[in-house]
Formats: sequence, structure tokens, C-alpha cells
Amino acid sequence: MIQLHLRPGHDRRVRRGHPWVFSNELQPLRNKIAPGETVEVLTAQGEYLGTGYYNPHSLIAARLLSRSREDIDSVDFYCERFRTASRIRQAIYGEANAVRMVYGEGDHVPGLVIDRYDNVLSVQFLTFGIDCRRDLILQALLQVFDPVAIIGRNNVAVRALENLPQEVEILYGELPERLEIIENGLRFMVDVLQGQKTGHFLDQKENHLALRERVAGKRILDLFCYSGSWAIHAARYGAKEVLGIDISAGAVALAQENARLNFQDATCRFVQADVFDRLRELHSQKERFDGIILDPPAFIKNRKRLREGIKGYLTINRRAMELLATDGILFTCTCSHHMDRETFLDTLRKAAFQAGREMRLLEIRGQSYDHPVLCSCPETEYLKCAVMQACG
Amino acid sequence: MIQLHLRPGHDRRVRRGHPWVFSNELQPLRNKIAPGETVEVLTAQGEYLGTGYYNPHSLIAARLLSRSREDIDSVDFYCERFRTASRIRQAIYGEANAVRMVYGEGDHVPGLVIDRYDNVLSVQFLTFGIDCRRDLILQALLQVFDPVAIIGRNNVAVRALENLPQEVEILYGELPERLEIIENGLRFMVDVLQGQKTGHFLDQKENHLALRERVAGKRILDLFCYSGSWAIHAARYGAKEVLGIDISAGAVALAQENARLNFQDATCRFVQADVFDRLRELHSQKERFDGIILDPPAFIKNRKRLREGIKGYLTINRRAMELLATDGILFTCTCSHHMDRETFLDTLRKAAFQAGREMRLLEIRGQSYDHPVLCSCPETEYLKCAVMQACG
Repeated sequence: MIQLHLRPGHDRRVRRGHPWVFSNELQPLRNKIAPGETVEVLTAQGEYLGTGYYNPHSLIAARLLSRSREDIDSVDFYCERFRTASRIRQAIYGEANAVRMVYGEGDHVPGLVIDRYDNVLSVQFLTFGIDCRRDLILQALLQVFDPVAIIGRNNVAVRALENLPQEVEILYGELPERLEIIENGLRFMVDVLQGQKTGHFLDQKENHLALRERVAGKRILDLFCYSGSWAIHAARYGAKEVLGIDISAGAVALAQENARLNFQDATCRFVQADVFDRLRELHSQKERFDGIILDPPAFIKNRKRLREGIKGYLTINRRAMELLATDGILFTCTCSHHMDRETFLDTLRKAAFQAGREMRLLEIRGQSYDHPVLCSCPETEYLKCAVMQACG
Repeated sequence: MIQLHLRPGHDRRVRRGHPWVFSNELQPLRNKIAPGETVEVLTAQGEYLGTGYYNPHSLIAARLLSRSREDIDSVDFYCERFRTASRIRQAIYGEANAVRMVYGEGDHVPGLVIDRYDNVLSVQFLTFGIDCRRDLILQALLQVFDPVAIIGRNNVAVRALENLPQEVEILYGELPERLEIIENGLRFMVDVLQGQKTGHFLDQKENHLALRERVAGKRILDLFCYSGSWAIHAARYGAKEVLGIDISAGAVALAQENARLNFQDATCRFVQADVFDRLRELHSQKERFDGIILDPPAFIKNRKRLREGIKGYLTINRRAMELLATDGILFTCTCSHHMDRETFLDTLRKAAFQAGREMRLLEIRGQSYDHPVLCSCPETEYLKCAVMQACG
């Protein structure tokens, strides 16, 4: 087994359970190590810290999968990880048919994402080390979950950092013609091949539920509505009228279908438009909404674009706040890793001031429980959802 | 009207809606102003920013109650504020009989706290400026709420900073012999004269609800249990066994009575003991709990004692985590203003490491909606409640 030694005094974070080893934390290597190779990470003094995979092309030189010398190159290892992850989900969601089954670092399998949509698995291999172990992982998935199909949704930018191609492929079986899931008792069609992310946003389940008792009889605007989850939940919880806006014609068509599926198509209207443009129009028409949902794609793709991204959040939140009716409710989200909770709240405070609205912060919510946030790895947290209300 | 001018460039925070003016932000005064005096605050250029009261003995020289030249020395002014505050509560809680009706800065009446327990009001005058206006406020309270009694719970340390005595008195009417409230459908006796704070912790209502679906069939430990709200909620939501610990014999007696009142006295056991000592005992006896509630009094009374306070939270959270059974749940709170959310989470991460437990962060919750957090005044936020789960 190849052993990597940390530089003296650089073992604290890893010792505390963090799974990443940065290249500058390692002592110079004697031999070249191939990307994806299994390595043991040790302190400068030679104490074993964990086993993981190596990538010389990434700033994160190694990611640890085990703290106890497990064989990370065996099918059994992944079976055990998947069974543990599945048990955690079952304790929370019972037999739900739309669940993030494996959430990378949060489930001690860095770089691997597995979403279950009914009997189909939608998989992302996000690192070189995980991509190398694809066959082991597929075997384990078949053993543990027995799916009818496994889709590789590997068209994600982060793979470029790992020198991996971007592609979507069917890795096993055959896709059923219709793929339908249940979320909070509502039905949604999922497009696992062309939909955003792995097909559906599983990370907002509990936040959708938080609409309950906050939208009855109200007029709701859903910005970046995608396939309509927020909008249809709002309608289900009694909203009088819901307007969803998304720039993607495919998303709008899917949202309309989903609204019909839940008998909410009389309440929900979906429009294909640029959200920023449409917000300006709604503003000049002096439209007002009792509730606004603002769940945009990540504006901050990397740390270098932080300032620019914050500006985007500021503008769009200001616009939304301006459109709120008296006592109106705002559900506003950021899924940008680089936008931490307090920066987000500060941005919302500025937006409120610029909009000339006094706002109350009712809740600051996070991601669904099947996207576990580990104390030892703060990077496992990314989704923030603030629930706010205009004071008058 | 006395006018106070801010020093040039010191108007930004107040302009953004913050109600405090610090003494070092003011231009030198020409004449002496008596404590409690009504003042208008203006920018260096003479632009009106707001009306409030003055206190030369506090670092916070002025607190603003109005942004539109309302007469803050009239009964009508307080009636209007109270009606607005009441309308906000009613929209959320309907006709609930235990509500924080006025939450100082959060309701634009800095320094004033009013809790409603059935037909009794428990009031805190926290600043000199508010204490001066006691008669106006009492008249307004009688007009708007028509209570049978009003209690002044002015035995709080913060009054010393304002040169005010600490005292408890009946300001109006006669206290009923028994005072009972309903919280989330459960019954609690409230001791408005000798109980902690104003008699009951109204700020945890929604957090108590969050126990639901997390405690059924489980063995629960409730630390600093006071009058038993957490414990009795846990029992109501199906806990198998609940052990509450508090150092106050009065609290323990009240908790026992409350458990009986809700037919949960077979499930709940309350013990009078020092929590730190008892935790050590439980640890040495190798006791384990499926769920632990840790809702201590504020360990950080002022900024100077921040480090010491953080240490207290670290120790007690470590101890609690050590006592968690497999997959055990921890509800851990801080009501210290000076412990911000991220410092709290960092402390919990350290505690998890020291306890040798991998912990998932499920939620980070806040205070009840009748303690409104205003964007313009971050100091209105103080309660943090993290829900965590041990990974195995």
C-alpha cells in the first residue's frame, strides 16, 4: 500500500475527521503516484489516519473513505457504505421512493452521489478516484438496491477539475418510459436524462413542507420554478394562484405536466421567461405577491466569482422584496457552496434596506436530511433557505 | 423637541433601520439632557432619522421608537404598537394564550417586553427610557389587552446598566391563584412571580414541536429542565422514559406538577441536582440516552466572559455527546446573545471531536416567531437550537 505522510503540524483537520488532504499538506513524494491510486495517509510521525484515493491533478490530493484500513477496492466495502446510508434514510423517510441515497463526503464516500428515483438510480462520479472505481460501485449498487436502470449523470463542471469528461450515459438496464416519484404526497415526473442535476431537486423536501400554513389563500410567485415542486406544493397547501417562471421551455413543460398530475393546473400557471427581465416587468406593472419563492441556480460557481455572485443574489432578492405585498412571505435560497450562511443573511439585510422593506427573519433552513451535514466536514453543507416576512 | 446630531459619516446603521445610537456617534451636546428625555436624532446635515429616548448613563445613548415623528409620549402611540404586535401574533398563533406580545426592538418598542399568560401580563421595563414611560404603557396595556393583572418582572441584571433597581411587583389587579397556559396543546402552570424570566420560556415553542417524530419509544435526558416543557413534550410525542434534571427544587416541583397535569408523570422523572455533577455520574455509570435535550441558561452574560462561556458550552456539549446512544439525537441550545450561530456551531464541532463522536447537523433552529428577528437589527436574534444526530 502506498503511504503518504503529512507535513509536521498539518494533521489537525484530518485527525478531526475531515476527509480531504490538500496537496500542500503532503510531504514530497518519493515516487510518482497514478491518479486514483489507493493510498494510506499518515501523520509526520507515521500514525495512520485513513485510507483513500489520490489525484495529483487536484488541489485536494487525497480523499479519505476509511479510518480503519478497510479495503476500499472491494465490492463489499461499497455494499456496507450503501447499506448504512440506506438505513439512515429509512429511519427518516421510511419507504419514500425519491431519496438521495449517497451524498459523497456526508456518507463517507467522497465524490459519489446516488439519487434513487423509484426503481432507477441516477449516479454522479465526481472525482477521478471514484470514477476509477465505477465497476465496483455498480456491482455494489446492483447488490444493495436491485434497480431496473442506473444512469450516469456525469455532465457536471466539477469533473473538469478532475480531468474527467462530461457525459450522460445509461450504465445499466433500461429506463422505464415514465419515471414518477412521490414527494410529500405529491407526484412528480422526473427527467433523469435531461433534467437539472440528477433529474429532480431532492434537497428541498423539508423546505417545500415549510410552505404549509404559510400560503393558504395567497397569490404566489415562484422564480426559477424548474419542474414546479415549490409551485405545486404551494397550490396543494391552499394558494389561490401560483405563477412559476423559468427560462427553460423543457422545465416549464414538465412543470405544467406535474401540475396536471396533482390536479393543480387550474391554480398554477408556468411561463417561460428570463427571471431578471420578468421581475423588471412585474415591477413596472406594480404587481404584488403575498408570497415569493426564490430558488435560483448557484450564482457562485467558484470562489473567484464570489463578489459578482453576491451582487446577483443582492439584486434578485431586492427585486423580490419590492414585489412583496403587505406582510408578504419570501422563501429565498442559495445553493452556492461559497455563500456561507452569514454572508447570505447579510446580503438579505442589504437587499431589504435597498428595497425599502423592513423584513423579519422567520427561519434559516438547510438541505434535506438525505444530504447529511457532518460536523467534521463543514463543506457538506451548501443549501441555505431563509424564510422572511415583510413587516407591513 | 431636543435634537441630537450624529457625527458626520455615522448615520449608516441608523439609516438602515437600526434603532440604537451609541454615545460616541453623537456630536457633543450643548446642554445636559435628562435620562429618559424624548429626543429626535438627525444626521450631521440635519436630516431627520427618528424619535426615541435618551440615556446619558448607557453606551446606547438613544433608542429609536419611531421613524416618522410619532408622539412617543402618548398612550395612543403604545396602543398602536401593541395592536400591531398583537395582529402579527394572531396571524401566527391564533388565540393562543401564552405569547410574547411585545419583544422590544423586534416590535419597535426598544426596552419593553410583554408576555401574555392567559389573562395576566408579565412585563419587563429594561431601559430607563421605557421605565419612565411606565404609566403610559400600563394605560395602553389595559386598553388593548384588558388583563386581570399586570406583573412587573424587573429583576433582571440588564437594568443595572441603566441605573434601575431590580424588583418584582404587581403593577395592576390581582394575580389569580392558579395560572395555567396551553403550549402546543399541552398544559403548563406558570409561576409569574418567582419563575425564571417572566415565568415560562416562550421562545422554544416551535423547537419543542421539533421533538415530534424524533423521540417515540426513546429514552430521553432533559438537562436544565426547568418547569418541564421539553420533557413533557418528549413524553407526549411517545418517549419511553424521560429524566429531567434541574438545580432548582422549585423548578423540579413545578415540572412534576406539569407532568401530572398532562398525564405524563409515569414517563417523566425529575431530579434536583447540579447538571455538571450529574452528567459526570451518568458518564461513570456508563448510562446512555437515545435523545438528550441541553437547554442551559445563558453561560455568557457579557462579552468579556465570552471565552469562558464558550468553554462552558464546549464542556457540557462534549459530556452530552458522550452519553448519546447509537444514532442518538441531541437538541442543544444557547440563548447567549454573544454566542453567534457560527461560533456555536464551531463549538459543537469541537465538542463532537473531543467526545469522539461523528455528528450530523440536522437543523439549526431559532427563537419562536413571537420574538421577531428584524433584518435591520441583528441583535434581536439570540436563541440558537441545533438538532444533531450521532452517526452510529
